Amino acid sequence: MHSAADSREAAHPLDNLDISSSPGQEKSLTPARNEVAVDGTDFSHGDVGAFPPIPGAFDLYQQAFVEGRRYAYSHYRGHLHVREHVARHVSEFTGHPVDPSHDIIVTPGTQGALFLALSSLVEPGAKVAIVAPDYFANSRIVAYLRAQPIAVTLHYEDPARAGELDLDALTGAFAAGAQLLVLSNPNNPTGVVYSPTQIDEIAALAEEYGAFVVVDQLYSRLMYPGTSFTHLRASGIADDRCLTLLGPSKTESLSGFRVGVAVGASHVIDRMEKLQALISLRASGYSQAVLQCWFCEPPGWMDQRINEHQAIRDDLHARFRATSGVTVRPTEGGSYMFPQLPPLRVSDVEFRALLRRDHGITVTPGNEFGIGYGRSIRLNFSQDHDKAAKAVSIICELATELTI
Amino acid sequence: MHSAADSREAAHPLDNLDISSSPGQEKSLTPARNEVAVDGTDFSHGDVGAFPPIPGAFDLYQQAFVEGRRYAYSHYRGHLHVREHVARHVSEFTGHPVDPSHDIIVTPGTQGALFLALSSLVEPGAKVAIVAPDYFANSRIVAYLRAQPIAVTLHYEDPARAGELDLDALTGAFAAGAQLLVLSNPNNPTGVVYSPTQIDEIAALAEEYGAFVVVDQLYSRLMYPGTSFTHLRASGIADDRCLTLLGPSKTESLSGFRVGVAVGASHVIDRMEKLQALISLRASGYSQAVLQCWFCEPPGWMDQRINEHQAIRDDLHARFRATSGVTVRPTEGGSYMFPQLPPLRVSDVEFRALLRRDHGITVTPGNEFGIGYGRSIRLNFSQDHDKAAKAVSIICELATELTI
Repeated sequence: MHSAADSREAAHPLDNLDISSSPGQEKSLTPARNEVAVDGTDFSHGDVGAFPPIPGAFDLYQQAFVEGRRYAYSHYRGHLHVREHVARHVSEFTGHPVDPSHDIIVTPGTQGALFLALSSLVEPGAKVAIVAPDYFANSRIVAYLRAQPIAVTLHYEDPARAGELDLDALTGAFAAGAQLLVLSNPNNPTGVVYSPTQIDEIAALAEEYGAFVVVDQLYSRLMYPGTSFTHLRASGIADDRCLTLLGPSKTESLSGFRVGVAVGASHVIDRMEKLQALISLRASGYSQAVLQCWFCEPPGWMDQRINEHQAIRDDLHARFRATSGVTVRPTEGGSYMFPQLPPLRVSDVEFRALLRRDHGITVTPGNEFGIGYGRSIRLNFSQDHDKAAKAVSIICELATELTI
Repeated sequence: MHSAADSREAAHPLDNLDISSSPGQEKSLTPARNEVAVDGTDFSHGDVGAFPPIPGAFDLYQQAFVEGRRYAYSHYRGHLHVREHVARHVSEFTGHPVDPSHDIIVTPGTQGALFLALSSLVEPGAKVAIVAPDYFANSRIVAYLRAQPIAVTLHYEDPARAGELDLDALTGAFAAGAQLLVLSNPNNPTGVVYSPTQIDEIAALAEEYGAFVVVDQLYSRLMYPGTSFTHLRASGIADDRCLTLLGPSKTESLSGFRVGVAVGASHVIDRMEKLQALISLRASGYSQAVLQCWFCEPPGWMDQRINEHQAIRDDLHARFRATSGVTVRPTEGGSYMFPQLPPLRVSDVEFRALLRRDHGITVTPGNEFGIGYGRSIRLNFSQDHDKAAKAVSIICELATELTI
């Protein structure tokens, strides 16, 4: 099939996909020296050792396993009682109702929800508005589906100004026939949280052009003081034009269980369930049970988590800002930071290889998030504070040493 | 996007897909009466209460959770040490080597492996040889990928003869341009195990026509006495033409963890990993750990499991065979039985609805497995023996009562 596919057209869409620098894959790219590997700092994802899962999550998993018969299998869209729990809390959190029977599906991670959503909405040849920079999988999934991404720039470079999506470009994309916008809010990798005005305008444009919006709000619970979060689904967009992706993999550190959800447009949820029936049948029946502690964390737990992340953010941000030639925006929501380094004597690939080989430090390359971000690196700072601070100092020193 | 998609072509491929009668989905179709619901018998999948998971599986999960940092994230193709364990044992089990770096991927259930494999091998418009009857997802995934299934009949109706794939039809499919054959062995739903001769001939035909074969061997460890299992991958087919799907979800009752594997052609594994990066990133990092008890069950555990299933098989088979108008083949491998009922006064839909509503008995309709099997029902007999026997007696009585 391989050679047949190759001869029939240019290439299978998967052959053009390079995942070697994606988070979690770097280990095969540049091995760290033995002496640094053990205590390395991996900024490609959060450290669940430094920020452990919600207390009680494992107990729920264990109970589900012990009950076995009730939990091993579920409807493809998830256990009804789990959907009821999540629907109730997501309704309250987002300020807009979620019907547990029709408006929600439980998926293998929020990544699962993203793939199912885009596969349900995107036809081959369609145009899809994608924010730049944004989570790398958005444009990759669109390309895999043989559709055409249209980049819409998010201006985030000036730390003194609110991050701003280029709404003229979005209008242009819709006018050119894009019927779908995909974005993350807070933005991955920059940490921008869209203003209420921006969200309202996105909703209004979607209505005007009859477009659908998939908004990935994976980090929307991790908001730093001074930022207010606006839920698109409660901003006047029609219910059948909006899908919101959420999950406990990041702030709540439940990534290892692989559960996420999509809430919103029921006709899209229906398609997503059908595709899930083909892809993996269901999110792990036992893992689904841990969603019952989501939004029900012990009093003060989330506040403390936010405070601790804020302290790390402030520390790392100050270190980057104090480094000549580095520009960086303070993260408004989530645990990503996206500093731009000064022009270096080595390539961005060599720089990252040096970080890994000599210091056991892993970062995600900026060009994973769009074209033209090669000088930037993404750090997930959900890490042990001291280790992260030391690692950022090393990054800054190496950048300074290698500055042209 | 919905309306645009509808106007652009007939329908999104997902709109044609009906999953309402698929295993696990029946609950939304016909609710059982309250008094029978609690103690119902659900033949749509195995009962992990009656046949519990491999001892120690949960402990491995717990250890992975406690180690957290090491297990929450993995390479998209799975933790290396888990792949090493599985590769070693699958090499031994199948009699053909598996390179843990290149020839194996860990997926969310064996279903995940099937979807990734077919998506990596099938281009839109391609022809794909599919066995009839066979696991319903095979043809559904092919249709979703906008390719064209070509049915190749498996003759299983005569219980006295070996099940036989129509090799003339397979040759015809290959000659007509199909470059892929997908089959399950043991066959789902009939329980047929392909003879060594048949497997050799399939391998030879694939070589002759340059075709690829995906063989789903999910049930290949549950072999009843008198049957020998032949691994296609060790039957002379080139390594780059064969992919074998395996997993601990069935015989080993680890379905709730959602882990499976594909082993074989490394160029396909590479594509599968890329697609997994888009679909769900990885199988649950913690769940992958339970694969370390797979193929390492306590001494005698598997033999006992086989013996217990054999006793149920023999009992249910005798009950069906004693019922006038029912034809049924003794299952050679796995825990599926596919009896054909006599012509009834009610439709097959009504018959199943009666079973569910009045007796809490769930079976999977035969027409899920191909066209023309409407009089058959599939039972997964991995159940409590007594309950299963009583339920089959009820099925037989109801069929007798309703026979034309």
